[in-house]
Amino acid sequence: MTAMITTASLRTLVTRPWFERVIVSAIILNAITLALETYPAVMASYGSTLLFIDKVFIALFVTELILRLGAYRLSFFQSGWNWFDFTIVLVTLLPFLGIAALGNISALRAVRVLRLLSVVPSFRDVLSGIGRALAGSFAVMCVLSVILYVGAVLSVKFFRTASPEYFADLDNALFTLFQIMTLDAWSEIVRPLMAVYPWAGLFFIAFIVTTVFVLLSIIIGVASSAINQPESDRKDRELNDKLDALQKLIEASHGR
Amino acid sequence: MTAMITTASLRTLVTRPWFERVIVSAIILNAITLALETYPAVMASYGSTLLFIDKVFIALFVTELILRLGAYRLSFFQSGWNWFDFTIVLVTLLPFLGIAALGNISALRAVRVLRLLSVVPSFRDVLSGIGRALAGSFAVMCVLSVILYVGAVLSVKFFRTASPEYFADLDNALFTLFQIMTLDAWSEIVRPLMAVYPWAGLFFIAFIVTTVFVLLSIIIGVASSAINQPESDRKDRELNDKLDALQKLIEASHGR
Amino acid sequence: MTAMITTASLRTLVTRPWFERVIVSAIILNAITLALETYPAVMASYGSTLLFIDKVFIALFVTELILRLGAYRLSFFQSGWNWFDFTIVLVTLLPFLGIAALGNISALRAVRVLRLLSVVPSFRDVLSGIGRALAGSFAVMCVLSVILYVGAVLSVKFFRTASPEYFADLDNALFTLFQIMTLDAWSEIVRPLMAVYPWAGLFFIAFIVTTVFVLLSIIIGVASSAINQPESDRKDRELNDKLDALQKLIEASHGR
Amino acid sequence: MTAMITTASLRTLVTRPWFERVIVSAIILNAITLALETYPAVMASYGSTLLFIDKVFIALFVTELILRLGAYRLSFFQSGWNWFDFTIVLVTLLPFLGIAALGNISALRAVRVLRLLSVVPSFRDVLSGIGRALAGSFAVMCVLSVILYVGAVLSVKFFRTASPEYFADLDNALFTLFQIMTLDAWSEIVRPLMAVYPWAGLFFIAFIVTTVFVLLSIIIGVASSAINQPESDRKDRELNDKLDALQKLIEASHGR
Repeated sequence: MTAMITTASLRTLVTRPWFERVIVSAIILNAITLALETYPAVMASYGSTLLFIDKVFIALFVTELILRLGAYRLSFFQSGWNWFDFTIVLVTLLPFLGIAALGNISALRAVRVLRLLSVVPSFRDVLSGIGRALAGSFAVMCVLSVILYVGAVLSVKFFRTASPEYFADLDNALFTLFQIMTLDAWSEIVRPLMAVYPWAGLFFIAFIVTTVFVLLSIIIGVASSAINQPESDRKDRELNDKLDALQKLIEASHGR
Repeated sequence: MTAMITTASLRTLVTRPWFERVIVSAIILNAITLALETYPAVMASYGSTLLFIDKVFIALFVTELILRLGAYRLSFFQSGWNWFDFTIVLVTLLPFLGIAALGNISALRAVRVLRLLSVVPSFRDVLSGIGRALAGSFAVMCVLSVILYVGAVLSVKFFRTASPEYFADLDNALFTLFQIMTLDAWSEIVRPLMAVYPWAGLFFIAFIVTTVFVLLSIIIGVASSAINQPESDRKDRELNDKLDALQKLIEASHGR
Repeated sequence: MTAMITTASLRTLVTRPWFERVIVSAIILNAITLALETYPAVMASYGSTLLFIDKVFIALFVTELILRLGAYRLSFFQSGWNWFDFTIVLVTLLPFLGIAALGNISALRAVRVLRLLSVVPSFRDVLSGIGRALAGSFAVMCVLSVILYVGAVLSVKFFRTASPEYFADLDNALFTLFQIMTLDAWSEIVRPLMAVYPWAGLFFIAFIVTTVFVLLSIIIGVASSAINQPESDRKDRELNDKLDALQKLIEASHGR
Repeated sequence: MTAMITTASLRTLVTRPWFERVIVSAIILNAITLALETYPAVMASYGSTLLFIDKVFIALFVTELILRLGAYRLSFFQSGWNWFDFTIVLVTLLPFLGIAALGNISALRAVRVLRLLSVVPSFRDVLSGIGRALAGSFAVMCVLSVILYVGAVLSVKFFRTASPEYFADLDNALFTLFQIMTLDAWSEIVRPLMAVYPWAGLFFIAFIVTTVFVLLSIIIGVASSAINQPESDRKDRELNDKLDALQKLIEASHGR
């Protein structure tokens, strides 16, 4: 009985507007303290204060997570955004779990600021929109992956000896092909290869043309559907509603 | 009474077509004299003449501003474009306010040419359109800022020691991440880091994929809505009007 | 008679869902073994095993091709995708035809993984969509080729002596202009030329502006039509159907 | 009388399908001979033959122009495409007018191949489409020019002393800003300036963000309207026609 009441009252608490506002403010303040930590001069003077404040924020975020876990119990894990929050708070706690050996892991505390994306509803909408559109482009992305993969295997086998710093193994070649796909300094990689294999130019031109096409078709598809869809859908619904109204009117006039 | 008449007659004056044409011509002529000032050879021969002409233009623009201020009084400041003009004329006056210490501030006189953007109505429409579309993408831009911010804090903490020229502090890292986002020479920054931290490649690939996606979705959204919206809206209105007319017609036929 | 039965039963076999699933799994497994072959350490230990497995896969793909050839006979060659499969298997067999002289031709075995694109229906749809849209942009691509061609001939004649590493002959100039069109390190090529011919800057700015415009209009055209067309067509059909239904209704009411 | 007949019969001649086909073939053949001229080895062996063939082609194109001039007389100059042809043939004749002093002007013979763009109707449509869309983006291009201009004047005044190789005078600065706008090696220009003026980074980030936005809005606007407009217009017309038909039907039913 008590547990039930607690759950209900916790839900009331965590859905209060001021609760969200407190969390958003805390994240923004924490973002500022994390930024200050990157300046060595500031750390020298106020290092211990900043680290103490950071611990207060961690305590706050852990408390918030526990409150929301208590409010929703197992249904908490039905939302992807809750998993997102849960993982971020967990990652953030890692440095305190005595895994000092991981060294720079304390840097990961900065990912906490990403929680802004899940807490502010309009940011969440943006990401959901992009996510939905990406899901719609899943097949195109698989096609791109297959092309990248085949390109990487081929280029390792063809160019490993001529250009080991770019095509030593599959990881290396995948990174190099990603770089070429972004069109960054690709001629620096390809021109020396062409001195050895004159046909290398054609290989990479074919690769660039193909991947840039597929890549841009993903980006444009995602961008346009994520942004224009709601508007276009609304207009479509309006037109359809008008036509339905007209039909009913004519039917009424007919049935008279 | 006199003041009222003055205000009314000033409004008539500043809204005359020839008034706008004089100002546009003055800005274009001033743009030419400012261009000539950049050629040392020209400055050596005609420097004092050019600087004198420039003062005449300043006097003209200040007079124009005073006339418009007199015509609209406080309601002058209700338009964003008037604020734009006001700020530009003010910035342009700075070098004459004895702040010689600021040195190169006289260069700022060139921003006067930007007034073309506020004076010519069709240019103003272009900027308003882009501005309105940018406002519609506000949430997407906040998402991009959060990603950039977290990326900058993380990369300072991870890569400061390995690559101090790119990730010394937060400002530095934000600039570097902006450069990487524009895909300019990013492999030159990332390849040396990968020699130290093999996972750095994945970090930056994730950063590039995420930000390029979000960035392009802003650009495409803004560009398409700024340009195609009016046309598409007009077509939509036409269709809706036709449907409304049909409905009225049927209702009339029904009510008969 | 027996042949007829064989053909029919073969068709039943090759269209079974599990048949496709076996082929897709085989391609993916083969992709993994091909990837392992690129790591020298793995090849040193398991080289002969991997090459044996590869031969098993080749046998499997050749068998599949023969089965499908037996099932469809000459009508097999009516589909472009079958030609695609046929060519890939043939290319893949080349290294076994004793053409050892071609050396690195065994690398071409990796193109087998491209068969994923023809076997998985949704990947095939993506490529068909892009292909159809490319066909629609055929005239734009010809225009781009003409501009590239004229640009290459002109730049060979103008800049061969000043910059022989970039404009030695037509092949070389076409590659360089392709690089400039992708905006990769173009200023490195153009700035030294401008020291010799001050007008070279204008030549390349004109080239960049023209080709980037034409190029992007192809990409955007292809991307948007490949992705948005089906959706937009469906909505259009719905609207038209509604209007047709309305018309019939009114005609019925009229004919009453 | 004779002149009249000649004009009419010339018009019949120049509009014959085989006439266009002959010209297209001649341009393509000439493109091949012009390409061969760029290979020094080929020129050494067949140089005089190629130059002779080239003169035959020039004679052919001049004849064609005279025939079309004779067929249409002054109305010839009412079409922009005819001006295009006329100018190209004229430019092509320059090297034969004894202006040997211009040296490399014989290279301009290659622009003749551009005539393919005006002769083939579907290429002409592509260019007309892009041209019409560019005209629609005129205001946006003026806005971009104003921003580039002000940026160039400002950067000459600010950065001339610190970086004379990029910002020596207005021409130089305009070229550099164009390069930065294409995002090619811009960090190489900006990073050294930031060592002198820390605020230079903000100046160029503002410049890049602004111009890339405006630039992409032109490109996307042009590309989308040049390609999708006809299709979208057709669909719109269909919908409108249907609605008009409906309205007439209802009015008829009403008037009954």
